[in-house]
Amino acid sequence: MAKTPVIAVDAMGGDFGPRVIVPAAVDAVKRGLCAVLVGDETQVRAELARCAPAGADLEVVHASQVVGMNEKPSEALRRKKDSSIQVACNLVQAGAADGVVSAGNSGATVACGMFTLGRIKGVQRPGLAGVMPTEKNPIVVIDVGANVDSKPSHLFQFAIMADALAKDVLGVPNPKVGLLSIGEEEGKGNLVVKEAFDFLRRSSLNFIGNVEGRDIFTGEVDVIVCDGFVGNVVLKLSEGMAKSFGNVLKAELRRNLSSKLGAMLSMPALSRFAAIMDYAEYGGAPLLGLNGIVIVCHGASNSKAMTNAIGMASTFVSSKTHKHMTEVLMAHSELAEAGRRVKV
Amino acid sequence: MAKTPVIAVDAMGGDFGPRVIVPAAVDAVKRGLCAVLVGDETQVRAELARCAPAGADLEVVHASQVVGMNEKPSEALRRKKDSSIQVACNLVQAGAADGVVSAGNSGATVACGMFTLGRIKGVQRPGLAGVMPTEKNPIVVIDVGANVDSKPSHLFQFAIMADALAKDVLGVPNPKVGLLSIGEEEGKGNLVVKEAFDFLRRSSLNFIGNVEGRDIFTGEVDVIVCDGFVGNVVLKLSEGMAKSFGNVLKAELRRNLSSKLGAMLSMPALSRFAAIMDYAEYGGAPLLGLNGIVIVCHGASNSKAMTNAIGMASTFVSSKTHKHMTEVLMAHSELAEAGRRVKV
Repeated sequence: MAKTPVIAVDAMGGDFGPRVIVPAAVDAVKRGLCAVLVGDETQVRAELARCAPAGADLEVVHASQVVGMNEKPSEALRRKKDSSIQVACNLVQAGAADGVVSAGNSGATVACGMFTLGRIKGVQRPGLAGVMPTEKNPIVVIDVGANVDSKPSHLFQFAIMADALAKDVLGVPNPKVGLLSIGEEEGKGNLVVKEAFDFLRRSSLNFIGNVEGRDIFTGEVDVIVCDGFVGNVVLKLSEGMAKSFGNVLKAELRRNLSSKLGAMLSMPALSRFAAIMDYAEYGGAPLLGLNGIVIVCHGASNSKAMTNAIGMASTFVSSKTHKHMTEVLMAHSELAEAGRRVKV
Repeated sequence: MAKTPVIAVDAMGGDFGPRVIVPAAVDAVKRGLCAVLVGDETQVRAELARCAPAGADLEVVHASQVVGMNEKPSEALRRKKDSSIQVACNLVQAGAADGVVSAGNSGATVACGMFTLGRIKGVQRPGLAGVMPTEKNPIVVIDVGANVDSKPSHLFQFAIMADALAKDVLGVPNPKVGLLSIGEEEGKGNLVVKEAFDFLRRSSLNFIGNVEGRDIFTGEVDVIVCDGFVGNVVLKLSEGMAKSFGNVLKAELRRNLSSKLGAMLSMPALSRFAAIMDYAEYGGAPLLGLNGIVIVCHGASNSKAMTNAIGMASTFVSSKTHKHMTEVLMAHSELAEAGRRVKV
């Protein structure tokens, strides 16, 4: 039997720190996953004693520093060599862990992952893959903010990497890959998208052409490829809308007795609705294209989201997504190289 | 008393043509607005006879051609000199009408408006201003697709024009203007956004800095400025999500007897929820920066959306938005000129 992947969890990250992260890791271990907690040993052990008084099968690795949520990534990287996120990445680099999960400063997590683990040979830019709920199944949107001003060849490689993720982690046998644009026909979009279209068309992916904003949430497409600026707006807008819809709906249902009673009767349906739209279900955004997996979680992640992110990292490792990704990238290296030479 | 503005309505446009457009214009006239129907006279008069048997105070202007929804805008412009959208624009150019409303081919409507009416002096690119519902008040997102690969100075001028629209048409006294980016701090975003930030900061607008995707739907910002590629994705994604949320909620509420009963009791609340999220409430997207106003409506617009678009065009004209816009553009012409010289 294959060894359970070891996931290094940044215990200090996120808006809530050890108070939320440590119980999430304990839950993950209860589900049969393997987690190592990285952070201030005193704080982490205190939290462990509180949430798992009988003890839990978790190693703690000490890190003396924490990167603040508003610190500049480049400075954090230079000045905080013993930050929890840096130490977590070091564990993977040294082979003591197989993946990293962090809800800390996203920019610092991305930068730290890139510099410590390095890119897969041939990958021009790593891409951050957001997993989003839709009307049907969850889908992957790549890139959701690791890069801006992407080139056509970057979009092309994002597609290849997200395709492997959708297959291995979301369990979609032959993912439909769409290029986000502002019209369905070939030739619609900005300069970068028009060029990327051509490379995707020539690839072995199940490329279905351009998709529009309205197609994202229907769940008809499994992988949506875009520049990190656009993807970041898409992810944050959809999260914001899901929250706003909930707020408006709740306010309207509380307006009078009849609707309050109605809401009570339909509570199981409303809860299922909320669960379908729950972003925490998918944990975090894997940073694809590195020698190792780093999952970037929302700063406001709750314990459930963190546990699911640890699960996602574990599945990524055990299903050999990294290997599958590298093989398909290799098979398309000439096309990616041609894409690199395109001027836009 | 000022004369009621005359709005030329493309009677042939949209997925449904005269069947939806003619009743919308009749409704607008009943509300005290003034509309001229442009299209195939026989078809339009037949529809008029059906929906307003007692007669309605509407002029009909014949146009022998129609631009198909999938026709290439440039070809439509060249080959169909007597299309309903072209004739409607001609009416404004000749001074026989004050504005145009069309649910026809969006690209052809934008192109036709630009070439027939021309740009306001100093305007580098016209911008399509989407009016979106939010958790609070409706907001303006500009540009939602008239341009891609915008320059910083284009974004800057979009902001000035949308500010005037928010003041005059949405009735916001001092609109908060935000620049859509992927982080709140100055210096976050892509190259174009970073440059545009500087020009907006130096303007007389109530510029509140960068806003993120999650801020769009809260309604805290009145005007959101972005490139047309991003804005188009934002508008279509939010429309799509509103629809998907409705679908999922309906499906969940129909699952069993208790939730069906609950839904019945809370129907007024659910209907108010649907009304708040109703894109038809705002009619269409005004194309700003031309000598005259053109409102571009969704192809699938219903009669209510079309009537509201006619109302919006009328308010735009009667509140002298065009004059206000021109004045602020003039006051910022040096800044826009400096922006034009920025290389990105």
